[in-house]
Amino acid sequence: MVVAAAKSELSLHERVFAAVQSLRSALDHKVVTSLAVREQHANITTYLPNEPADAVVFAECTQDVQTVVRTCAEHEVPVIPWGAGTSLEGHVNAPLGGICIDLSRMNRILEVNTADLDCVIEPGVTRKRLNEELRDQGLFFPIDPGADASLGGMASTRASGTNAVRYGTMKDNVLSLKVVTATGEVLTTATRARKSSAGYDLTRLFVGAEGTLGIITELTLKLYGIPEAISAAVCPFPSVEAACNTVIATIQSGIPVARIELLDEMQVRASNAYARLDLAETPTLFLEFHGTKASVHEQADRFGEIAAEFGGGPSVFAVKPEERSKLWQARHDAYWSVLPLRPGAKAVATDVCVPISRLADCVMETKRDIEDMGLIAPIVGHVGDGNFHTTLMVDVDDPEDLAKAKHYMKRLVERALAMGGTCTGEHGIGQGKMKYMAPEHGEATLDAMRAIKQALDPKNILNPGKIVAI
Amino acid sequence: MVVAAAKSELSLHERVFAAVQSLRSALDHKVVTSLAVREQHANITTYLPNEPADAVVFAECTQDVQTVVRTCAEHEVPVIPWGAGTSLEGHVNAPLGGICIDLSRMNRILEVNTADLDCVIEPGVTRKRLNEELRDQGLFFPIDPGADASLGGMASTRASGTNAVRYGTMKDNVLSLKVVTATGEVLTTATRARKSSAGYDLTRLFVGAEGTLGIITELTLKLYGIPEAISAAVCPFPSVEAACNTVIATIQSGIPVARIELLDEMQVRASNAYARLDLAETPTLFLEFHGTKASVHEQADRFGEIAAEFGGGPSVFAVKPEERSKLWQARHDAYWSVLPLRPGAKAVATDVCVPISRLADCVMETKRDIEDMGLIAPIVGHVGDGNFHTTLMVDVDDPEDLAKAKHYMKRLVERALAMGGTCTGEHGIGQGKMKYMAPEHGEATLDAMRAIKQALDPKNILNPGKIVAI
Repeated sequence: MVVAAAKSELSLHERVFAAVQSLRSALDHKVVTSLAVREQHANITTYLPNEPADAVVFAECTQDVQTVVRTCAEHEVPVIPWGAGTSLEGHVNAPLGGICIDLSRMNRILEVNTADLDCVIEPGVTRKRLNEELRDQGLFFPIDPGADASLGGMASTRASGTNAVRYGTMKDNVLSLKVVTATGEVLTTATRARKSSAGYDLTRLFVGAEGTLGIITELTLKLYGIPEAISAAVCPFPSVEAACNTVIATIQSGIPVARIELLDEMQVRASNAYARLDLAETPTLFLEFHGTKASVHEQADRFGEIAAEFGGGPSVFAVKPEERSKLWQARHDAYWSVLPLRPGAKAVATDVCVPISRLADCVMETKRDIEDMGLIAPIVGHVGDGNFHTTLMVDVDDPEDLAKAKHYMKRLVERALAMGGTCTGEHGIGQGKMKYMAPEHGEATLDAMRAIKQALDPKNILNPGKIVAI
Repeated sequence: MVVAAAKSELSLHERVFAAVQSLRSALDHKVVTSLAVREQHANITTYLPNEPADAVVFAECTQDVQTVVRTCAEHEVPVIPWGAGTSLEGHVNAPLGGICIDLSRMNRILEVNTADLDCVIEPGVTRKRLNEELRDQGLFFPIDPGADASLGGMASTRASGTNAVRYGTMKDNVLSLKVVTATGEVLTTATRARKSSAGYDLTRLFVGAEGTLGIITELTLKLYGIPEAISAAVCPFPSVEAACNTVIATIQSGIPVARIELLDEMQVRASNAYARLDLAETPTLFLEFHGTKASVHEQADRFGEIAAEFGGGPSVFAVKPEERSKLWQARHDAYWSVLPLRPGAKAVATDVCVPISRLADCVMETKRDIEDMGLIAPIVGHVGDGNFHTTLMVDVDDPEDLAKAKHYMKRLVERALAMGGTCTGEHGIGQGKMKYMAPEHGEATLDAMRAIKQALDPKNILNPGKIVAI
């Protein structure tokens, strides 16, 4: 208590200074304070301002993370975890300053248990690297948010992406986590057993907590066998509505599609130009089917029948790996493909998710809004889950343009909430969506979240100013 | 503060008396204090003693639950939720007395959203009733713990059962919960969107919390289309090891089996007698395949090839609904079928779950233990998840027999933990497994669980004496 009282008499600036000094003597060259490095570790992806930490520590092991957290706890200084910097809502910003922990050097694959279809990895492993390492063993990890994010970051934002309709999100594919707590202790959330009813589900509590409850230093992930057959398809539609209704009917009929992605006509046009495709410039679904050869054929046939009922098709299939890669690369490059549509502007990705019965309505109303407001905002979506993004081009230096963009985003979220949806399907809350937490959840739910935050991080040092900032 | 101080000067007995008086005037005939009713609402399924509450309140709506919790909070009296009384670890016992809330009258199905494949129900709906109501709409809810449990109870224990290998557990199939908190407020954990990254995953926190963090008064559940084709099969094996190895190879090869259940030879003998089957009395797998007709055939063929490699088969198929029902009824009646093996004894179900690579080892070592100790304990298991039960026959009135049973159960859990497994795959902690929480999780993890309990239930009134009793 004496220490805490003494600390709180110092200014935050003085405490940060003391923490950095202490970390320098403990971790030496792993501590970097140059502005360029600090800025590169804060938000660089959206309209949110870049708010750098006071120092970046390049952690190499769990003990390093413990050292940083213990030091920050002692000096009551914020600590912000960083994986690959691909987050979209300012999760890595340091609005109060403090210490950023760069986890990218903690990138070892510790175990691959082929018989159990799981692996144990450090948080800095990226999803592409993991899948490269797994390929020879006939295994893969399906969660694919597009960017080559770190698995620690993906767990922390409860990421999902194109395969979620079949394989679930990070919440469904993390078996266990090793976490450094706010006091610098290490805990493990669960065993490697596939299921358990042994107490509170801490795994799912830390997944999606955005580093505000603890810092993930190890993940045990579920793996899957690479399917015997994979077939991708591109299916054009006369309207976004027809495409959405086809998606709904496909899901309802139980076809186990692995991917079912919508691109509206503006996005197809951008992707044609960027990725040198020659798709018809009309609303289009990109699909992928996984299974045995027979099952993949059957799935594709059934999907084709449904699409035809809504005036869609015919599908063009890509079976060869290099054709499939080109297709999905084009889908993943949607963000980049949009940039030339308004040179100098920034691309801001929205992320609502609604019950699938409301998907067509939500997309259509949003398209009308885009047209009425004169915005450039192509639509892509993981529509099998009811989740879609608009890639809004914003001149962040023009206050009027930024205000219009914010107005559009607010209307979009309100529309999704009114339809029983959520303000974020997969990007997370970070700083950008805190204002929607109360409208989405209500005060009683927020109170419970705040109580949990307070219980696990009473000094509020873990990534403060995010989710339910207290 | 004045009220709290005054309350704590009264004995628990006096406070309970005051709470019951208050509830009688608020809820009248819904409050029952007869011993028979109170005993029937405490543990009646295992060797754990029956510890009745002081009163049972038959709640009919969320407001009733709020009234009970508010009254119990005011008087600092325990409140224990009750669904169908089928839990196996003393979850419904009232070791400190208090008020039991019977939720069985809250059994309305509030919404079935066929387009979204979800439904909203009250917690007292049982799984059989739900599926009866859904059948006409071509939908089903897959989680099937055997007993006709209430969905609120199934969520609270994170139940799973025979279909979990394909469809997951309750944690994977609850979209949202309405919960009455320790202060009697109502919160909703999430929207009906299929996925969300909007803050802490309160849904997964309340699933498996056994009523210690809040009382579930409404559930939004995922539904599935009834598969076009369903085929069940029975496949005999020369040994438990051969059966386990077949399961491992089946899962690894990606065959999407819907059910894959092991019965050892002692269980087959008991089921033959009880359910009038004429199965070969050898270790046996019960399976079910879901899909299109072609896919079901393909799955069954591939499974047959794998089984043959391990000396198993040939499989006998049950395609007609009534044949399949007979088979699964026999599986579900495993508990009852064992009772005649030792008349007068009680059946106690164990519940370890291990990484699937260790399944054969764990089952074989356990069988040796059963033989060496001279116990009667047939084995059944959801072996696709690495989860198996032994149904141990215990004369609970014979201290020596009970001590031997406890010694066996302790050895079993220690074996599972040493193999990287969990003390409970699906039954939960309740009272019976609290002693294994520290060995399984370690103190840092338990501290985090205790902090959460303290944060959400500071007066410790919600089902006290369970999970991490503080």
